[in-house]
Amino acid sequence: MLFQPVDPHYAERVRGSFGRQNAMALIGARLELVEPGRVEIRLPYRDENTQQKGYVHGGVLGMIADTACGYAAFSLMPSGCSLVTVEYKINILRPALGTLLARGEVIKPGRTLTIARGDVFTEEGAHVATMQQTLMMLADTPDTPGKP
Amino acid sequence: MLFQPVDPHYAERVRGSFGRQNAMALIGARLELVEPGRVEIRLPYRDENTQQKGYVHGGVLGMIADTACGYAAFSLMPSGCSLVTVEYKINILRPALGTLLARGEVIKPGRTLTIARGDVFTEEGAHVATMQQTLMMLADTPDTPGKP
Amino acid sequence: MLFQPVDPHYAERVRGSFGRQNAMALIGARLELVEPGRVEIRLPYRDENTQQKGYVHGGVLGMIADTACGYAAFSLMPSGCSLVTVEYKINILRPALGTLLARGEVIKPGRTLTIARGDVFTEEGAHVATMQQTLMMLADTPDTPGKP
Amino acid sequence: MLFQPVDPHYAERVRGSFGRQNAMALIGARLELVEPGRVEIRLPYRDENTQQKGYVHGGVLGMIADTACGYAAFSLMPSGCSLVTVEYKINILRPALGTLLARGEVIKPGRTLTIARGDVFTEEGAHVATMQQTLMMLADTPDTPGKP
Repeated sequence: MLFQPVDPHYAERVRGSFGRQNAMALIGARLELVEPGRVEIRLPYRDENTQQKGYVHGGVLGMIADTACGYAAFSLMPSGCSLVTVEYKINILRPALGTLLARGEVIKPGRTLTIARGDVFTEEGAHVATMQQTLMMLADTPDTPGKP
Repeated sequence: MLFQPVDPHYAERVRGSFGRQNAMALIGARLELVEPGRVEIRLPYRDENTQQKGYVHGGVLGMIADTACGYAAFSLMPSGCSLVTVEYKINILRPALGTLLARGEVIKPGRTLTIARGDVFTEEGAHVATMQQTLMMLADTPDTPGKP
Repeated sequence: MLFQPVDPHYAERVRGSFGRQNAMALIGARLELVEPGRVEIRLPYRDENTQQKGYVHGGVLGMIADTACGYAAFSLMPSGCSLVTVEYKINILRPALGTLLARGEVIKPGRTLTIARGDVFTEEGAHVATMQQTLMMLADTPDTPGKP
Repeated sequence: MLFQPVDPHYAERVRGSFGRQNAMALIGARLELVEPGRVEIRLPYRDENTQQKGYVHGGVLGMIADTACGYAAFSLMPSGCSLVTVEYKINILRPALGTLLARGEVIKPGRTLTIARGDVFTEEGAHVATMQQTLMMLADTPDTPGKP
């Protein structure tokens, strides 16, 4: 599963876009790894991200897996485009505690649609969640806030 | 789609559990409506919840729909049980701006598994996202942080 | 949920395409209703379609819901295009026996992507399965077997 | 991803159950490989299984991936139990022609729920579809047709 990026500056582009995601800062997520078709996000444990029993909220697991998949797809796209999440499906495999790592990997890149897989692990390597996602490229569309 | 709750205090139980979800406070989500098998959550727009283009993050849409579905299911369960999200799948239908309303509704309640649907709308009624979710009841399990 | 078809001959186009689906003939499925954005398929019970316990196979439920959703989307598209299923997710709500009705309905039509919902019922109205599906229109592409 | 079966006769049990699935015979699917937590099904190309453009029907891809996942899960279960599909989600990655191989693999086995992944390939190794599935074990339940 190795991909050749069309944009040699893919990593900067991904890091710049991730840096504009306020929601990632809100939960304390950090971009760890950016490779062509593979992105990893680290989420330290915070009380603020928990559900009613003290585990990391299932929706927060979805957020980091969704974002890791999205940037895995974005890394393979040309500069000057933007990306939207069409849909994702996540199975939560066990309760999540401690620092988490979300890995997104492209399964099939495409001109219009890209399919990616996301997996969330604890630092000890326990498999916490797995996601399947569909993304759509918007050609010639800025990846920054536009005028409505 | 009308359900009879087995716990007459279902609404207090749901509100208490929601109140312990730090992640809902983090994004500013409020519980609006609790009925048997139906729950609504309101999310005012906040810059902190956005993705790189200024729209509400797709993972945040997942969080509020996931939570609305979960509590819709929880409202029909007996007291003394807890609930885990098995999986969910969300389609994002359009970019989300402004205050959002997430509605969760039970499609099929069950002793072990409950299936729910979640929908997210803008205040103007635009359909932003739709979710299908599977939840599992844990009988005789406290819905509060336990000792590990 | 009412839609205006762009092709006045949408119903003939849907019926013609359904008639070329050998897999529908194989399981004995019939097209019952074609409206703009809504399609119903009837599947009489046959021993040939069952799983190991004598119920209708879960994959067969997927086939009829998938097809009903696809043609609901196809009914709203212009003539001269074709359609591919991007993905679908189905929850099976109860074991299926007897004649089944699959209803597909468009949730959100789009130039490129259409989102649809599918539901399968027994003749008595029991809800057997529910599906969420994403479809992609291929503009200016024949909906017939081409030369490879 | 190696699992230890609790039932030493898991392979016979899986083969017996598969043999009772009339729907697999209907489409011409054959059980190729049965290992603990991994099952492969082969589907030769047949005109009967196609959609309107001559490709293998997307619902048929779902059928073989669903069944491969189900029996991967069933291989790890004790004798005397039965299994139901709770839900599955499939992405179709490219049009499918020729003989297909569906591989189901357990991601996380569990006492009640098992999560599995399914992938469909052509004989040349092209990745045609990928599935994520949730299954539920029914303890002390015969895996054969019962009295209604």
